[in-house]
Amino acid sequence: MPDKTTLQQLSAAVEANFEEQVRFLADIVRHPSLRGREAPLQDHMYRWFAGRGYAVDRFSIADVRLQEHPKASPMVDVDPAGSFQVVASRRCASPTGRSLILQGHIDVVPEGPAEMWTFPPYGGTVKDGWMYGRGAHDMKSGVSAMCFALEAIRAAGYAPAADVHLQTVTEEESTGNGALATLLRGYRADACLIPEPTGGTITRAHTGTMWFRLRVRGVPVHVAVAQSGSNAIMSAYHLILALQEHTKRLNEAAKTDKWYEGTPDPIKFNPGIIRGGDWASSTPAWCEVDCRLGLLPGQDVATQQRAVEKAVAEAARTDNFLSNNPPEVVWHGFLADGFVQEPGSEAEAVLAEAHRAAFGEEMGARISTAVNDTRFYGLYFGMPALCYGPKGEGAHGFDERTNLEHLKTTTLSIAAFVADWCGLQPLS
Amino acid sequence: MPDKTTLQQLSAAVEANFEEQVRFLADIVRHPSLRGREAPLQDHMYRWFAGRGYAVDRFSIADVRLQEHPKASPMVDVDPAGSFQVVASRRCASPTGRSLILQGHIDVVPEGPAEMWTFPPYGGTVKDGWMYGRGAHDMKSGVSAMCFALEAIRAAGYAPAADVHLQTVTEEESTGNGALATLLRGYRADACLIPEPTGGTITRAHTGTMWFRLRVRGVPVHVAVAQSGSNAIMSAYHLILALQEHTKRLNEAAKTDKWYEGTPDPIKFNPGIIRGGDWASSTPAWCEVDCRLGLLPGQDVATQQRAVEKAVAEAARTDNFLSNNPPEVVWHGFLADGFVQEPGSEAEAVLAEAHRAAFGEEMGARISTAVNDTRFYGLYFGMPALCYGPKGEGAHGFDERTNLEHLKTTTLSIAAFVADWCGLQPLS
Repeated sequence: MPDKTTLQQLSAAVEANFEEQVRFLADIVRHPSLRGREAPLQDHMYRWFAGRGYAVDRFSIADVRLQEHPKASPMVDVDPAGSFQVVASRRCASPTGRSLILQGHIDVVPEGPAEMWTFPPYGGTVKDGWMYGRGAHDMKSGVSAMCFALEAIRAAGYAPAADVHLQTVTEEESTGNGALATLLRGYRADACLIPEPTGGTITRAHTGTMWFRLRVRGVPVHVAVAQSGSNAIMSAYHLILALQEHTKRLNEAAKTDKWYEGTPDPIKFNPGIIRGGDWASSTPAWCEVDCRLGLLPGQDVATQQRAVEKAVAEAARTDNFLSNNPPEVVWHGFLADGFVQEPGSEAEAVLAEAHRAAFGEEMGARISTAVNDTRFYGLYFGMPALCYGPKGEGAHGFDERTNLEHLKTTTLSIAAFVADWCGLQPLS
Repeated sequence: MPDKTTLQQLSAAVEANFEEQVRFLADIVRHPSLRGREAPLQDHMYRWFAGRGYAVDRFSIADVRLQEHPKASPMVDVDPAGSFQVVASRRCASPTGRSLILQGHIDVVPEGPAEMWTFPPYGGTVKDGWMYGRGAHDMKSGVSAMCFALEAIRAAGYAPAADVHLQTVTEEESTGNGALATLLRGYRADACLIPEPTGGTITRAHTGTMWFRLRVRGVPVHVAVAQSGSNAIMSAYHLILALQEHTKRLNEAAKTDKWYEGTPDPIKFNPGIIRGGDWASSTPAWCEVDCRLGLLPGQDVATQQRAVEKAVAEAARTDNFLSNNPPEVVWHGFLADGFVQEPGSEAEAVLAEAHRAAFGEEMGARISTAVNDTRFYGLYFGMPALCYGPKGEGAHGFDERTNLEHLKTTTLSIAAFVADWCGLQPLS
């Protein structure tokens, strides 16, 4: 933990910069950085970092040999060459501390029907201490925290005594290929912190995620039996029900998992997008459902993929339409492992101290039923990977919002963590 | 029935023109006259009729006071001002016979995934005596039959001894507003023949049709119970299942219907289009399903609408998602009565004779579980309305096709019907 004076200096700097931080956050919330459309926000980040003296590397996923890595996920409907990553580095001339990667994703999920929002989804409206908007919580708040933690250190007259890389990435919500691309570009450090909005807890474990598209297509049986469900839309439903049953079996098995035994039904199955048919008075000949299914840390993705395919194939055999028109399972996004950041790392101990210093209470741990990017650092590149950040509500929902007071304290907590993990030197 | 000589003259003329008729049919099949995009084909028809000396009236649905008529159906997603009707008239200076409207729709339903067709859906390919393409069967074949029946009469040196209107209309597949617009424009006759592809039978009865959109939209319950079906897609399925049950009850009641007692499950329910959700990893907050439901002749559309709304409302009460977010039922197309062309009309007797003369066999009657435009003429404007035309396969499906030999004989049959119903005069 930084000494009391340094902590006070950092706290004062975070406080002094906070108005600017809120402006920064509103600015980046106003960029609708949906998948495939993140580049303008990455350009903005590039300019922001460059203007503050960072050495900035901007490159696309097509610039690294992504598909050669076994943990790359398929990218369908989006061009890797248009998916830019930004790494802003402050290299230390005479490092005495431990290096650090701070990474945040700037991609957001679709906002849904705008009229269901109280405030405009890309407005960055502030009201009663909360900022509203798609991504305000997940995770542009965290991006602002990591950026302004470094701003505070600088404003307090210090520089980290080790290399620090601030990374803004894409694809966290769909594949994780953005984070993987920064690793394949060669960036490494002694630890990684990802300020996902965890509400001031560390994510002990996260589940993996698989995305697949059920593709039902074929020649319907005669309209005379249309009522009995022999159309592509009804047959897609038949497959969804079968996958719900499959999920139940997975959750039954999860009851004895070391990390998830206390979490009811940790494996979430979600049919998230559906589209099918062309005409109200024509029996639909096609239907597609984009699905998401979780898996536990330690489970093998390929094994779980085969289990999904088997469940779908078995269900197809008992359906009029599908038995003549076998459905496809297309793997079109996440093929993500679960991950456990085992307790006991030095990095976590330093973070816990920083949290205590900033919040005046112990840092809790949480078990997450959703995925995040830490797996790349922790599982495949052997770095302690801490997922810890601000507090908010409504990730992927309407009226998503981040709590500004909590964000300020989190920014201080991260500044204190950097100060202790990397050490500080007077600003030269 | 025309005398033997006249019949032979007509037959020779149909035969002589048939190559041109097939070219004409391929031409109009090559126009992808999907809903909202029919105008170029109507322009083509306008030029074709005008080039043959017809007095042609081209007007849009917005040019008549459609919405004041109680049997107009709502048009959603399409502009009435862009939906053109063409009426080509040959008025007889000294009529001695009975006037006639021949009407065909030129709108087609979407072709679905093109790769599921053996031949290009808008190619008009001829192979082994069949022409393939969306609309080749339903009902551009019939349009060619009515046009070339008149061509044959002319080529044989005759003109009808009464006014004849050849009408090409839109919206048959979605509302029927095209046919209604011609009646509101003022066109009337002593009978109407619609050469839908009935395979040489007369349509004794057709069911009515209602179109509605189930609109599910709301805030999902917590993801912790996502598996139990509390998302908009799963809730849409809940409503579909309820409507399948509703349809079963309707079909139970239909078992004692005078015209449909011999038809198993004459009331067809079809969920034809579905779309919902924005992201595989977000619980979907919205889903829409475009549905089609039939009704029997004599049943009141408004009563059946209320029954659908009641079934949906009752189902909504038993669903986690829907009980907090009541679904909407939007009536967005067909609100069509069923219709029976009662046996015994003079027009039908004349048609039956013409059929016998052309095909050498008796004309059968069929009971249809789909709607057609005859209801407007027969139910609301008191004209005998005959639905009778060529033979084909695959309406609304893949590899839709019309049988060219049957089409030729049907063209003769219609020519013979015109000759007898209207009478013939020497061409002046």
